[in-house]
Amino acid sequence: MINLVILGTGNLATHLIKTFLKAKNVRLVQVFNHHSDSLEPFRPFTSTTTDIQKLKKADVYLLALKDDVIEEVALKLSEKGGLIAHTSGSVSMDVLNTFENHGVFYPLQSFSKNRPVDFEEIPVCLEANSVDNLKILKKLALGISDNVLEINSKQRRNLHLAAVFINNFTNHFYSLGSELCRENGLSFELLKPLIKETASKIETLSPIDAQTGPALRNDIKTINSHLKMLGPEQQQIYKLLTHSIQNLHGKKL
Amino acid sequence: MINLVILGTGNLATHLIKTFLKAKNVRLVQVFNHHSDSLEPFRPFTSTTTDIQKLKKADVYLLALKDDVIEEVALKLSEKGGLIAHTSGSVSMDVLNTFENHGVFYPLQSFSKNRPVDFEEIPVCLEANSVDNLKILKKLALGISDNVLEINSKQRRNLHLAAVFINNFTNHFYSLGSELCRENGLSFELLKPLIKETASKIETLSPIDAQTGPALRNDIKTINSHLKMLGPEQQQIYKLLTHSIQNLHGKKL
Repeated sequence: MINLVILGTGNLATHLIKTFLKAKNVRLVQVFNHHSDSLEPFRPFTSTTTDIQKLKKADVYLLALKDDVIEEVALKLSEKGGLIAHTSGSVSMDVLNTFENHGVFYPLQSFSKNRPVDFEEIPVCLEANSVDNLKILKKLALGISDNVLEINSKQRRNLHLAAVFINNFTNHFYSLGSELCRENGLSFELLKPLIKETASKIETLSPIDAQTGPALRNDIKTINSHLKMLGPEQQQIYKLLTHSIQNLHGKKL
Repeated sequence: MINLVILGTGNLATHLIKTFLKAKNVRLVQVFNHHSDSLEPFRPFTSTTTDIQKLKKADVYLLALKDDVIEEVALKLSEKGGLIAHTSGSVSMDVLNTFENHGVFYPLQSFSKNRPVDFEEIPVCLEANSVDNLKILKKLALGISDNVLEINSKQRRNLHLAAVFINNFTNHFYSLGSELCRENGLSFELLKPLIKETASKIETLSPIDAQTGPALRNDIKTINSHLKMLGPEQQQIYKLLTHSIQNLHGKKL
């Protein structure tokens, strides 16, 4: 049984809290946040505190915090003997190296409030400062996911960067598509089957093989007619992406 | 019963042929292509021809051809009395206006060879030069899809442009993500749950509400560290997309 304290109550923290409360080999002994209000939803299920000096003794302290406060909160933590790990894709493990036992517990997924997430399939990417600490994080991760692996800080940084492209930027294209629909009196529902198929395709095809469209075909007539329909910033995006597709596929404009 | 001739044997044509062969209210009377070889797979199921002067009499002739040859092939077609429709998202209906009965039959989906597609959910966007011709196309479309609607050429052009963003450009981001994995000794499998969730999210959230990430948070530290990891072209893409996200969400860099 692993005794766990979670620091934070944001999207990721909330999903972790809910999931660890159901995990068989984990006892969530406490949740910390400096705002009392945001602890409210968790009080019926576990102990809570707004005082970082009153953290309970635990095996693992998960800092499920925004990137820019991880170091700050870690500085306020007194050494407890337990393993201190953060959950960030882009923050180096080294920010925790004042602690004897430290590591990273990075679930590679996008978390939104009020949207349930099934952790079982989510890759949990681990890093630790010793073999023993890695073992502890592995045990913790296997309590909620079947997809657990060790990666180093550089790999994690690159995964996080890839996630920005395939999640944040992709979602922004959904927004631009949705705007185009709205401006033309069309329902965004129309685009949903295509969005779904685009994502499903790469289950059976590599994204390189799945690529289609005017950029790949170098269909200059369509490309030019599209450019005319766009405002300056979207025109630049369209041009750059078209060029990048042709670069990757070895064609020239 | 609608008698149908399909011109073309590319990805879309192949999927249409397979689907119409199973449709109850449609009889696929012929497939045309000027290459005899590409007709081979369809010979066991329907009549085929490489001679455009030998097209059979039919109610509808579907030009499921590449955008840049639609006009050219249409010019070679002699008036048969049937309805002539193309399947393109970006070509105007007007290129067919030498025919008394003409229209557009645009299935909004991305088609790849060897990947089965379920037409039932695919929006089929119709346009026709008369109420009667629209009725015929509707009947034809309802034979394969439950999602049939009338849109005009301008709406269709904009849908097609939106499709480039949400399908072609999104898939290119999958490719860039896959490259980042490869370069760092990571499996692309790791990104698949996130790709899936990104696409699924917009079933319950608007893409505006689903947006997350460093651009939205204006997390300059992460943005700068990502920029340092990218080559010049990808850097430009990252900057533009970050700016575009912040523009749409009303933030300033």
